[in-house]
Amino acid sequence: MPRKLMLGFFLAAAASPLFAQADRPSSTAEPVTGRWVVTADVHGTPIYVPMDLAQRGEKISGTYDGQKLEGSFKGGALHFEAKDDMGGQIVDGTLVDGALSGKVVDYDNANKEHPDQYTFTATPVRDRGPVVPRRHEFVPSAFYREFSALNEPVLTVSSGDTIHTSTIDAGGADETGQRRIAGGNPQTGPFYVESAMPGDTLSVHLIRLRLNRDYAVSDDAIVPRGLNSALAAKMQHGGKTVRWHLDLAQGLASPERPGEHTMHYRIPVHPMLGCIATAPSPARAAPNTGDSGSFGGNLDFNEVVEGATIYLPVFVPGALLYVGDGHAIQGDGELNGNALETSLDVEFTVNVIPKRRTPAPRIESTTHIMAVGLGGSLDDAFREATSNMAQWLVEDYKLTPSEIAEVIGPTAEYKVSEVADRNAGIVLKIPKELLQTMR
Amino acid sequence: MPRKLMLGFFLAAAASPLFAQADRPSSTAEPVTGRWVVTADVHGTPIYVPMDLAQRGEKISGTYDGQKLEGSFKGGALHFEAKDDMGGQIVDGTLVDGALSGKVVDYDNANKEHPDQYTFTATPVRDRGPVVPRRHEFVPSAFYREFSALNEPVLTVSSGDTIHTSTIDAGGADETGQRRIAGGNPQTGPFYVESAMPGDTLSVHLIRLRLNRDYAVSDDAIVPRGLNSALAAKMQHGGKTVRWHLDLAQGLASPERPGEHTMHYRIPVHPMLGCIATAPSPARAAPNTGDSGSFGGNLDFNEVVEGATIYLPVFVPGALLYVGDGHAIQGDGELNGNALETSLDVEFTVNVIPKRRTPAPRIESTTHIMAVGLGGSLDDAFREATSNMAQWLVEDYKLTPSEIAEVIGPTAEYKVSEVADRNAGIVLKIPKELLQTMR
Amino acid sequence: MPRKLMLGFFLAAAASPLFAQADRPSSTAEPVTGRWVVTADVHGTPIYVPMDLAQRGEKISGTYDGQKLEGSFKGGALHFEAKDDMGGQIVDGTLVDGALSGKVVDYDNANKEHPDQYTFTATPVRDRGPVVPRRHEFVPSAFYREFSALNEPVLTVSSGDTIHTSTIDAGGADETGQRRIAGGNPQTGPFYVESAMPGDTLSVHLIRLRLNRDYAVSDDAIVPRGLNSALAAKMQHGGKTVRWHLDLAQGLASPERPGEHTMHYRIPVHPMLGCIATAPSPARAAPNTGDSGSFGGNLDFNEVVEGATIYLPVFVPGALLYVGDGHAIQGDGELNGNALETSLDVEFTVNVIPKRRTPAPRIESTTHIMAVGLGGSLDDAFREATSNMAQWLVEDYKLTPSEIAEVIGPTAEYKVSEVADRNAGIVLKIPKELLQTMR
Amino acid sequence: MPRKLMLGFFLAAAASPLFAQADRPSSTAEPVTGRWVVTADVHGTPIYVPMDLAQRGEKISGTYDGQKLEGSFKGGALHFEAKDDMGGQIVDGTLVDGALSGKVVDYDNANKEHPDQYTFTATPVRDRGPVVPRRHEFVPSAFYREFSALNEPVLTVSSGDTIHTSTIDAGGADETGQRRIAGGNPQTGPFYVESAMPGDTLSVHLIRLRLNRDYAVSDDAIVPRGLNSALAAKMQHGGKTVRWHLDLAQGLASPERPGEHTMHYRIPVHPMLGCIATAPSPARAAPNTGDSGSFGGNLDFNEVVEGATIYLPVFVPGALLYVGDGHAIQGDGELNGNALETSLDVEFTVNVIPKRRTPAPRIESTTHIMAVGLGGSLDDAFREATSNMAQWLVEDYKLTPSEIAEVIGPTAEYKVSEVADRNAGIVLKIPKELLQTMR
Repeated sequence: MPRKLMLGFFLAAAASPLFAQADRPSSTAEPVTGRWVVTADVHGTPIYVPMDLAQRGEKISGTYDGQKLEGSFKGGALHFEAKDDMGGQIVDGTLVDGALSGKVVDYDNANKEHPDQYTFTATPVRDRGPVVPRRHEFVPSAFYREFSALNEPVLTVSSGDTIHTSTIDAGGADETGQRRIAGGNPQTGPFYVESAMPGDTLSVHLIRLRLNRDYAVSDDAIVPRGLNSALAAKMQHGGKTVRWHLDLAQGLASPERPGEHTMHYRIPVHPMLGCIATAPSPARAAPNTGDSGSFGGNLDFNEVVEGATIYLPVFVPGALLYVGDGHAIQGDGELNGNALETSLDVEFTVNVIPKRRTPAPRIESTTHIMAVGLGGSLDDAFREATSNMAQWLVEDYKLTPSEIAEVIGPTAEYKVSEVADRNAGIVLKIPKELLQTMR
Repeated sequence: MPRKLMLGFFLAAAASPLFAQADRPSSTAEPVTGRWVVTADVHGTPIYVPMDLAQRGEKISGTYDGQKLEGSFKGGALHFEAKDDMGGQIVDGTLVDGALSGKVVDYDNANKEHPDQYTFTATPVRDRGPVVPRRHEFVPSAFYREFSALNEPVLTVSSGDTIHTSTIDAGGADETGQRRIAGGNPQTGPFYVESAMPGDTLSVHLIRLRLNRDYAVSDDAIVPRGLNSALAAKMQHGGKTVRWHLDLAQGLASPERPGEHTMHYRIPVHPMLGCIATAPSPARAAPNTGDSGSFGGNLDFNEVVEGATIYLPVFVPGALLYVGDGHAIQGDGELNGNALETSLDVEFTVNVIPKRRTPAPRIESTTHIMAVGLGGSLDDAFREATSNMAQWLVEDYKLTPSEIAEVIGPTAEYKVSEVADRNAGIVLKIPKELLQTMR
Repeated sequence: MPRKLMLGFFLAAAASPLFAQADRPSSTAEPVTGRWVVTADVHGTPIYVPMDLAQRGEKISGTYDGQKLEGSFKGGALHFEAKDDMGGQIVDGTLVDGALSGKVVDYDNANKEHPDQYTFTATPVRDRGPVVPRRHEFVPSAFYREFSALNEPVLTVSSGDTIHTSTIDAGGADETGQRRIAGGNPQTGPFYVESAMPGDTLSVHLIRLRLNRDYAVSDDAIVPRGLNSALAAKMQHGGKTVRWHLDLAQGLASPERPGEHTMHYRIPVHPMLGCIATAPSPARAAPNTGDSGSFGGNLDFNEVVEGATIYLPVFVPGALLYVGDGHAIQGDGELNGNALETSLDVEFTVNVIPKRRTPAPRIESTTHIMAVGLGGSLDDAFREATSNMAQWLVEDYKLTPSEIAEVIGPTAEYKVSEVADRNAGIVLKIPKELLQTMR
Repeated sequence: MPRKLMLGFFLAAAASPLFAQADRPSSTAEPVTGRWVVTADVHGTPIYVPMDLAQRGEKISGTYDGQKLEGSFKGGALHFEAKDDMGGQIVDGTLVDGALSGKVVDYDNANKEHPDQYTFTATPVRDRGPVVPRRHEFVPSAFYREFSALNEPVLTVSSGDTIHTSTIDAGGADETGQRRIAGGNPQTGPFYVESAMPGDTLSVHLIRLRLNRDYAVSDDAIVPRGLNSALAAKMQHGGKTVRWHLDLAQGLASPERPGEHTMHYRIPVHPMLGCIATAPSPARAAPNTGDSGSFGGNLDFNEVVEGATIYLPVFVPGALLYVGDGHAIQGDGELNGNALETSLDVEFTVNVIPKRRTPAPRIESTTHIMAVGLGGSLDDAFREATSNMAQWLVEDYKLTPSEIAEVIGPTAEYKVSEVADRNAGIVLKIPKELLQTMR
């Protein structure tokens, strides 16, 4: 990975190995056996690397960032080399008080004479084993406008725990209508989930998602992705703010100042979270909270609702979960640029799925599995959604390429999830019922 | 329009005027009042032009191809000029036996000195008024592989009539499995619908769409629009034919030679028509039956099912309706390139909606109105679907731009309808229930 | 191929085998050895299939549509089977007077019990060997508005011959300004090139491309692909015809009715052909002359100029070359929808490159080789251009994937060739000088 | 603007007013007349707002963020309201020691009862008038990996000054090959340019761009935007590092370990800057140095070379100019993901063009003006490039919509500038010679 780093991360997407299985440290006889998280200090930039070590006498095997490694551990000194056909790392470290530290010599086969060199530290990843899940009440006081790995966690929880909290609206106003921060989807969190490590998946099950105030704010624009030339000319004066009244008792939304034809227009609300994210790697500048990516973020997908489970890859220790940007109701794609933006009462349970890397956000409802595809165009997003689902069917159902085609082709439901932000989104849904025979 | 013709139709999409209202010829006192269809012979190419004339004494007003016209009718001689800021037509004709013929001088303001000149004939469009709808049994013997205005109609019906017929599969095989013609979606039809004229809309209500044989043919490929680089490498050996057994009693499809994981895989069938089209203008070469456009065609939209009503623009006298390419079941987009291709038993009712031009196919189910968008990319298709729906909301509900935004934004359901063919497709669905208060 | 046919040609792009080498028929001892063109009559649709046969005693080997074949020839009866892992053809024919005829049993492995069956005829492809090239004067009298394999050739020429002729403008007007046919890029041709057979490449070297009248016609629109929302609102009244004066002596174009700021605006002309095409396979309806594809067509690429050589695949016997749609000058992409449309004086030399299939149009200038990419979006066109060039570098320079990347990456010149028509176009240019060391 | 802020900046692109002309503060009689930069503290987020004030007695007029304002200044107290049809700001401040401070009441017409409220400070923008330009030698010691407004300037210069410095390569290695920081285009800068204020344009003229070491690093991949399905399968093993030798004397690059066919492959170098940027507004999280936008950034455009002038909008006081990511040579689009990445010797002159807002990067060479378009797809980038150029032709040449079409259509040169990063890029070039008659 550092080799890719050197050239600018352009190829990072290609590197998503599934980790080999390894047990956690269990005895003094094999002090380094188990799963580690390495923090490499690459000339000032922290890079997290998952490492699995298996000790047999003085022999060490395992994986380093998905590459096979071979080496030795004797007298407290760890030495190994991990390599593939492009290059490798030679790691030398010392075990002190259960933690490793040392240096990495990182070489590229094309330039083996001039390797890069930097220091690292590593700590073991410990599974606490079964614990009694707790429920946390959390009242947010600070909000963040970037999905950053560097923001201080507001709460530390365990895998299996439940958090009850609230989110403010996209413009920064809370449930009392008071503005707490500048707009742009300010987030509640980040929540640190113990034992979550780079290479894991975090699942977030939304137990409860409810309105907690009686209005929402939107606008009367149509975003550029929705406009052909003729419609662009017609809609050119849009963009004015539209306030919607939320009838909490009946669960209905209606414009506060309706037009002539919308006097009796009422829409049933269906609260959803526009944003849900883990923190991406701090190797690069943190994305703002209007953006999205493999880490989730501003998905604006209207099936991120009460009852759904969201799966997100973990890039940093603790995962650092963010939630925000509640919508009372939103059509597919968030065509106005804003949905019915409002504050929400939110409750969810987090679970760590260790050593399972998901390439991009995935969602599960009672009826469907759903693979999110994100890209600069709907066409790119479509390809990513299909690939995300195909990989899912391989991982969970072991399907062959032919079987993938026969399953997705006749059953696919593709909906447009996002057109309002930099990434367009397409979600591929497959009915769980049709997959039942394949487990 | 001939001005656009001269330069190659590149601007044709801009020309979709709604016709002014005019009555049909009713008395000898006003022999030319009413609606006409003009056939201009533009140097060998037939161009259909809708014309509405209103006579008051010797004065003539009305519209010619949507442009306002002014002129005179005396002694059996019609003379008028229709123009806008780009140019116009000077039409001179003679009324003989209820038909007009004569010549058109067609000028462009940029080149007024050198106008084009060609002949025309015109016949009145007569509404037969209420008739008793008939039901036609039609057994097809010939099939067509292009959506052409020049194919001889196989049956002439009236607005309101019902046709019961069958379609062969995309590969040309009929309900007995016998191949009747080369593949590529050979069509049943064209059906000539009396009184349907250029500028009208044809509605086709699908009363019945049923399987009539026990197998379907598909393949195990994923089309290029579904493949990112990684998935393309994985799927590169796809494309083999997959035969599916159709259990007609239970309504289930299953691969005849399943893989290890698809031994118990069964999908409920949901028969649909991949193709439904009116004939496009003969001004240009006819599209093949794998293509689509404002005339409909190979939409491959899986809600063209029993119970749905499809609205298509009429470009030629009689509309010339084609149906074909039945699918036992198809996921969104027809991801394999082929759906479960099969022959079908088909029954539908046609109705002419006079003087109502739809910009692109529209569909109505019991619960939704749906606007089809087609384009070279999903992004273009998305824009077209949104614009098609916006125009529908203007026409049928008189909504303002702000109201359009407020209606589509929170209620839109966008699904991918087509990725297998040259045009990508996106369909925008709006629940009819939410629109009820606006009529 | 007929298997793909059965399912609708959706996978046709995958089928571009390079033919094995084979000699032409040379002796009575081996009557069927050599290259043949088979015309299969697939239930009414003619399909051309290249066939190479090598006879050794009674044994026959070779290829049929790129698939390896094995069989026998005895007593005037040919029998062989050609197959791959998806299916095959069993061909039985009789040799009479140097031509073969018989039947094809065409099976798909997924449905081997129910093969398709149809008749065929085949004629040998004879290389006339070196002849004295001729120069033909051809004055067109009819023009075509579709790139059809079914139009009668207007002239038959030999490989190496030169044709001097003229083209009328996109709107159908000739060098005297007289309109000859409806607009939409009416073509001169088709020219039948003897010995050109499906699977060959036709090269067309443009010797001379000159203006032959003193005006051109264009407009003041910008096509939708060039408009973002803001520009769409600003340009909404465009589309008026603009006549340009062509100063033939000085080679300059200027608007006949300039605006305030364009009073002194003059552009040097650079005549080009908007359309150059071979006839695509008659297996599907012919494209209109506004369209493009692997056969070339309405490329609107402004380096199709005097001195350039265009390479086009041959799909039908005789290639059937069309030329038309001359432009006095055109910026990249034909942004106005029309370039400076005019009639042209045209002279070119044709050459057949046997058994060399090009996947899409290619162009050679004195300085560059250029690979055309066409697709529904610029993004798709970009991919196709890159792939077309990569394949060229493999065929002509034997480059490995790594070398392809190292050659294209640092030297690529990508320009937008087409935004005005259904297909967008991107052209990838590589300087010939940099490739010289690789031959 | 804060109204848009509230809803998440989604509409920010629409807000690009050109400022009204106003003079700088000149006399004690009119203490507030002139140009100011306001720093609004929107609940913790700094927002820069350009403000122009004109005092006449106690009356104040002018503009605030492009909106017209009216108010009063008496007794050191400033009061005004600036509004449009969507809402407005009521500003109250006090002048102390030449600086203003106070509060803003910011209301939206749809929610006028509940305005937002925050504090501000403002300082006058002083034009130093003509000074003697200086030349600065700057040796960088720190490098940045985000285009941030919050990084401390490394040097403060005046408009007209020249800076001579160096850049390290994309992977962080300097001219000695030593790695200084993690990769991803680490930048030299930011340089603070005095008098540059939000709403201005910064021009950067590249005087000198030279190689300063004898190797470059690239790879043998093709980025996903260049791969169709077939090429993706063929190129799937790419991505290995390729070291190139740079022959500084002859100006030639060649692979250090060539393949069989590239033994004699040499390319003339043409040094360019992959990155050049002003700092975007700190209202949102800073983009990483692999990204691009209206602020410039990682354009990877191979005409950002010695002799070119780059125009970038100014968003923050001092502009904060960054440069980096030198390439020895790069083909259009940076197809490999990496160009020939190397360190460079760089010298450039900066100039502030006051009160002139450019919508996106623009470049001028000796022969062409060039408008950069950036977007999530090449199609979007194409639209943006066309719009950027159209706006340029309006601003500098006063062209009408018709004239814009007539100028761009026949003369446009569109090249693909970027396919390797998140934004695709297209550049529209117009020859300056053809525009000369229009000034």
